[in-house]
Amino acid sequence: MDDEFELLLERITPALRSHDLTALRQIVREQDAPEIVRLLEREDDADRAVLYRLLARDQALEVFELLDGTMRTELFASLQGEDVARVFEAIDPDDRAQLVDELPAGVAQKLMRGLSARERELTAPILGYPRGSIGRFMSTEYVRLQPHLTLGDALTHVRYRGAGAETIYTLPVTDAQRRVLGVVGLRDLVMGAGDRLVQDVMTDARHVHANEDAEPAARSVVNAQLLAAPVVDSEDRLLGLLTVDDAARILEEADDEDAARQGASEPLRRPYLTTPVLRIVRSRVVWLLVLAVSALFTVGVLGFFEESLEKVVTLALFVPLLTGTAGNTGAQAATTVTRALAVGDVSARDALAVAWREVRVGALLGGLLGLLGFALASIVFGLPLGAVIGLTLLGICTLAATVGGVMPMLARVVRADPAVFSTPFISTFCDATSLIIYFAVATWILQL
Amino acid sequence: MDDEFELLLERITPALRSHDLTALRQIVREQDAPEIVRLLEREDDADRAVLYRLLARDQALEVFELLDGTMRTELFASLQGEDVARVFEAIDPDDRAQLVDELPAGVAQKLMRGLSARERELTAPILGYPRGSIGRFMSTEYVRLQPHLTLGDALTHVRYRGAGAETIYTLPVTDAQRRVLGVVGLRDLVMGAGDRLVQDVMTDARHVHANEDAEPAARSVVNAQLLAAPVVDSEDRLLGLLTVDDAARILEEADDEDAARQGASEPLRRPYLTTPVLRIVRSRVVWLLVLAVSALFTVGVLGFFEESLEKVVTLALFVPLLTGTAGNTGAQAATTVTRALAVGDVSARDALAVAWREVRVGALLGGLLGLLGFALASIVFGLPLGAVIGLTLLGICTLAATVGGVMPMLARVVRADPAVFSTPFISTFCDATSLIIYFAVATWILQL
Repeated sequence: MDDEFELLLERITPALRSHDLTALRQIVREQDAPEIVRLLEREDDADRAVLYRLLARDQALEVFELLDGTMRTELFASLQGEDVARVFEAIDPDDRAQLVDELPAGVAQKLMRGLSARERELTAPILGYPRGSIGRFMSTEYVRLQPHLTLGDALTHVRYRGAGAETIYTLPVTDAQRRVLGVVGLRDLVMGAGDRLVQDVMTDARHVHANEDAEPAARSVVNAQLLAAPVVDSEDRLLGLLTVDDAARILEEADDEDAARQGASEPLRRPYLTTPVLRIVRSRVVWLLVLAVSALFTVGVLGFFEESLEKVVTLALFVPLLTGTAGNTGAQAATTVTRALAVGDVSARDALAVAWREVRVGALLGGLLGLLGFALASIVFGLPLGAVIGLTLLGICTLAATVGGVMPMLARVVRADPAVFSTPFISTFCDATSLIIYFAVATWILQL
Repeated sequence: MDDEFELLLERITPALRSHDLTALRQIVREQDAPEIVRLLEREDDADRAVLYRLLARDQALEVFELLDGTMRTELFASLQGEDVARVFEAIDPDDRAQLVDELPAGVAQKLMRGLSARERELTAPILGYPRGSIGRFMSTEYVRLQPHLTLGDALTHVRYRGAGAETIYTLPVTDAQRRVLGVVGLRDLVMGAGDRLVQDVMTDARHVHANEDAEPAARSVVNAQLLAAPVVDSEDRLLGLLTVDDAARILEEADDEDAARQGASEPLRRPYLTTPVLRIVRSRVVWLLVLAVSALFTVGVLGFFEESLEKVVTLALFVPLLTGTAGNTGAQAATTVTRALAVGDVSARDALAVAWREVRVGALLGGLLGLLGFALASIVFGLPLGAVIGLTLLGICTLAATVGGVMPMLARVVRADPAVFSTPFISTFCDATSLIIYFAVATWILQL
């Protein structure tokens, strides 16, 4: 697959350079939508707009639906008014709602006014839910069934009403008040005997509330291996469906964010190679500054012990080794616990259990490294310094694992993103504390 | 949803403690499969087997299919022979193949011999593909269509053959040699006019090759928002289907692994809270030791400059700040590039482009931090030391960003996992090089 894409790049690059629109049109029209998406993600704004305008109408729509949020907004900004209005009318209501969020308010309002009444009606309820809630991602075009229909009649109903729906594979069943009673799969309608009733084949619906946070709701849909789940209001009335492809996209964005935060930067939300350098700098500089300023604390700690350092300069040699080991141990614990929180293996009420596990893990790791450090340092620098290094490693590993494990739990308790207590954050915190432990142990053993 | 689960825990814990099987049976039988999965993941082996045996037969099967690989294997080990054989016969062939991989060879062979001929036949082709390839995850129970069928006849065919299939929502269309011509969705059969031909409504199939790596293939299915994609052999003949739920599971395991590696540990592959402490230690200790041994290099570098340190002890105060900043800058770059590689935004041939971007990003970040460092350090410690700190920050940020960006690319070129060049690995590497830069600059400016 990758070789094919390389070939495509080799064909398209010269055509783009020479502005050979005929050749470009021919090339892009023979590609699958996902290939075109990859292509657009690699090109700059101007070329992207050129390529996009050359797509066939159906293709353009299909490609648009596969693009990430930021790419959609940017593409919109570089297209002409008429193209914009056409795409805006044709896309799904939940995709439209997300565009409305990202576009300048004036543009968005104008586009909404240009919509047909039906499409506006389908979009409005989505916009009523807070950003980041599942309501923002629901499909409001669905087919619902009534419980007393026969499967044969239900199939006819689907045939009659299904054309505009985002999916007809999951069919919510509702009562007269639109309250969700269950769901039926299209498979049940096709495979079941035509005279059975919908209420006899429907299964309990795992439904999500429109106000819920998008990430855990999406994860519950993916984990339960559903194709779609009904989205309901506070009185369990049907509002829409969350489809598995929207759920997968929500999870991918969340994982993107977690991965970036663990490396102490903000997610780019766009392909790396076409992101301007200054934008990459912006995604990193705040965190880097915050961490550097926190690291000033280590200068303070070492300044406090400067006299001891002057007496035994050899102590300075181990500073990066010790702070590094503390940082690594803390990072390991933080990564494991952050991931466990993200996938729902651990919840806020497990904080004490997590702390107790990490104390033990840290003490075991520290004991092991401490013995090794004691042996090596004793041989090279003598027994007293060996003892200092060994005991310090035991102490800092225990502390770092515990801090690394507890920090993400604390974040969850105060409802912040656990990934914010990233590896670099934990490292910086552990640097300062491990220096204090180091010099406390050294002062005691070496009688400084 | 979480509150409900808390309530469930409060009901089940006393019943488990008092071995009240009647109460337990009643409680578990009213739960959805995903809730039971969460429950099983929290309990130890013995309680897990007790709870699992209390499930209704259908429920037991549904729960088993939602469990992770490791959990399945462990559950199998704690169940009785008869239960094992029944579950093994009933699960999907691809799930069965994964169990065969994990179970002791003798057990697996005995179970395979106990299978019905049909199920054995469905499982054998999956076992023929290498671990980690997409062939291992394909569903061999599908319904295929012929191109000249009318949609009406095709629907009848699906009704007749669809009962055992893993999905009937995606229907591959093949020629007489089983070569894939395209796919038709069940939606097309239901919504289309009954006298149209399959070949007129089928669309190009995005297919994956059974020998391909599972992760990129799974990502291409999820990115293209497909419910399933045909899996073919080297001659494009149909072997099975990759369904979106299997694709999502492959991606989740890959993200798990990436997240763990970025924190320099191996993925636990089981829920954190029920993993024995020693097993957590094992997942971390190797990396921690490797990193500590590499950090010995920093002791060597500092030892080399010990004379300069003795002359100006104040230089030691900045060591953790500088190595920390280098590590953070490197980690930011590595995280961004690793993620870009994972999602396919960047490929091996972009190595130079990545390096050039990171040189510029690093120089900009370093310039900014350097100015700040110069100003602060000059005020407190005088102009010469200020200049040392400022220039060092410029140098190490540029170097660290470049190294952090290039390392994952190198890994990809030599076909290793980019996430192995984890944050801690990069930090340790940057620690040593930043010390060399620091003392080189200090020796030059302070004339040591």
